Amino acid sequence: MADQHSAAGDTAAPPVALALRWEEPPEGPVLVILDQTRLPAEEVELVCTDVPALVEAIRSLAVRGAPLLGIAGAYGVALAAARGFDVDDAAESLAHARPTAVNLGYGVRRAAAAYHAAAQGGADAGQAAAAALAEARALHREDAEASERMAGHGLALLGELLPAGGYRILTHCNTGALVSGGGGTALAVAAAVHRAGQLRRLWVDETRPLLQGARLTAYEAARAGMAYTLLTDNAAGSLFAAGEVDAVLIGADRIAADGSVANKIGSYPLAVLARYHHVPFVVVAPITTVDLATADGASIEVEQRPGHEVTDITLPYAPAAGAQAGTGIPVAPLGTQAYNPAFDVTPPELVTAIVTERGVVSPVTAAGIAELCARSRSGNGMMSI
Amino acid sequence: MADQHSAAGDTAAPPVALALRWEEPPEGPVLVILDQTRLPAEEVELVCTDVPALVEAIRSLAVRGAPLLGIAGAYGVALAAARGFDVDDAAESLAHARPTAVNLGYGVRRAAAAYHAAAQGGADAGQAAAAALAEARALHREDAEASERMAGHGLALLGELLPAGGYRILTHCNTGALVSGGGGTALAVAAAVHRAGQLRRLWVDETRPLLQGARLTAYEAARAGMAYTLLTDNAAGSLFAAGEVDAVLIGADRIAADGSVANKIGSYPLAVLARYHHVPFVVVAPITTVDLATADGASIEVEQRPGHEVTDITLPYAPAAGAQAGTGIPVAPLGTQAYNPAFDVTPPELVTAIVTERGVVSPVTAAGIAELCARSRSGNGMMSI
Repeated sequence: MADQHSAAGDTAAPPVALALRWEEPPEGPVLVILDQTRLPAEEVELVCTDVPALVEAIRSLAVRGAPLLGIAGAYGVALAAARGFDVDDAAESLAHARPTAVNLGYGVRRAAAAYHAAAQGGADAGQAAAAALAEARALHREDAEASERMAGHGLALLGELLPAGGYRILTHCNTGALVSGGGGTALAVAAAVHRAGQLRRLWVDETRPLLQGARLTAYEAARAGMAYTLLTDNAAGSLFAAGEVDAVLIGADRIAADGSVANKIGSYPLAVLARYHHVPFVVVAPITTVDLATADGASIEVEQRPGHEVTDITLPYAPAAGAQAGTGIPVAPLGTQAYNPAFDVTPPELVTAIVTERGVVSPVTAAGIAELCARSRSGNGMMSI
Repeated sequence: MADQHSAAGDTAAPPVALALRWEEPPEGPVLVILDQTRLPAEEVELVCTDVPALVEAIRSLAVRGAPLLGIAGAYGVALAAARGFDVDDAAESLAHARPTAVNLGYGVRRAAAAYHAAAQGGADAGQAAAAALAEARALHREDAEASERMAGHGLALLGELLPAGGYRILTHCNTGALVSGGGGTALAVAAAVHRAGQLRRLWVDETRPLLQGARLTAYEAARAGMAYTLLTDNAAGSLFAAGEVDAVLIGADRIAADGSVANKIGSYPLAVLARYHHVPFVVVAPITTVDLATADGASIEVEQRPGHEVTDITLPYAPAAGAQAGTGIPVAPLGTQAYNPAFDVTPPELVTAIVTERGVVSPVTAAGIAELCARSRSGNGMMSI
């Protein structure tokens, strides 16, 4: 088991890619993934030598989080190409490993397009594979840069919304360095607030059923030395009622053209609570999360996950000799049916602002989203629409 | 391990006291408690021979739920008296075993008052103990009758609020036969709806951190043959947004004079969601839950429970050879601080109606609460205020 506290005081840790890296050992290229289902108890790496292994890692949530899924998808195409597998088959199975995350398909398409463009331009298989890998690396680098820009825009936005400073920020799920090629999205903003000396408290929703908040956000917050407190998702209401939340910061898995935000189940009730209590509700996501082909919230396909995630508690590691890591322990009566959507959809009228690497949209409208998407990558600051 | 499905088709099961019973074996009277922390995996009984054992059972939530706590407190006083312990000491420690539940103190005071009245009237110790036991039994019987009346009033109220019938009811925590001398509170209403052939779906919040919904409400719903579906607490928002909830039914641990309702953590966010979606939010509780000495919501003392309930997953039974039942498995990094209030407070303006055995208050106002408390036990039907 890793020492969870060895880096707790390391507040200036660089946004290293904790979560995923490409390696080229003598026996051939591999994608090495930190198995997030085992955190925070153990830092276990999965070495993917082919696309089916990577698809399984995506499905099991060993690798997860919208931006990171895009990077993983791009490297997956590069891996198939480098190892001589059929690139189109690989792209197809990767793009459908999970239905809701738009970034996954984006990353896959970018690497596949680079591969085909090279091949059509006369490159041999090795050169085309190298083109796919270069594209995956470019996406990885862009994502790290996007994290930095989102953090900067988010910090500036909070300064405008809450000029008194000393923020108590509530966050949900995990949106940090574990979901990104860089520092992440919402948690990257919280980290920037922390580095600026303005984080009074990070309230961390545990995020049932898979406890990404308890396991992953708490892990990242502890590593960064933030003042954080964990709570059950249903305890957030009390914090709002007590005036203990200054802002909600969450990520997004898909943003529709009208500004509707699909994010981890439990985001929508936070948006309703934030509205009821006049607290800013801020979504932080890279521009690749915006899907103009999805008109509105009702058009977003929401992944329904297996009921056993709710009826059984799956532990991140073996609780005792004889028990298997990842084994579900039933907590509900046998035969219990569960409703287990992975995401919910927050309508634009409940979102105070969407922060991207290209700037901030506030208020959130279809026109604002469209303008943001049309903006060049060097765009900056608050939009006026 | 008990067969969890043996009674699944037994829809007309009488509201037997599953949860608690008084016995008088040759070696002296005992209070036998079904250990609710072990459900649904195992039906294990705790035999309390003295008050410290009962206090520990109350603190550990082996016995829980506002009405049942009152009954347990009364029997605890009777137990101390029957076994020759100091009745005032027993009453004192029982009354403070948990801070928020007003019924606990009520049951304790009733049995202690009966004991002292008998003693002051010239009864010997045995006769005074018998008086305390008779009072505990009276409270137990009254509670069973109250359950029946609440179920009737609740069913009638739903008929008025939702004349189309075929209800999809969302409930939180556990409020059935396991918390009562009878059928319970909110879940007794759902059971009456079910028996009337009007329950389309019972949505069961799992109710973190202790999973009373997943473990106990699902257990009771399965036994009663209800169509039920389990969900994580944070998934309720999606159901409201999809128009899948016709009414919310919850219990209460304390109702202040202004109609503010303290109930299991997670109730308040449901009330906000219900208001936002124009869905009735109905509280079902016996009149003993009303505490006129508590002026308003801000005056309600909310129990803060240990953080390990959130940072560690406590399993209802041993998951594997070598692991201890009730052992917490850490899911958050070591040293993680948690915010873990047992209850939250819903203000009266978010409560559509309060259903008691004496009738229904709607809208919920201080005047309505006062009138209800002044009403005789035979009071009936909707109040007009």
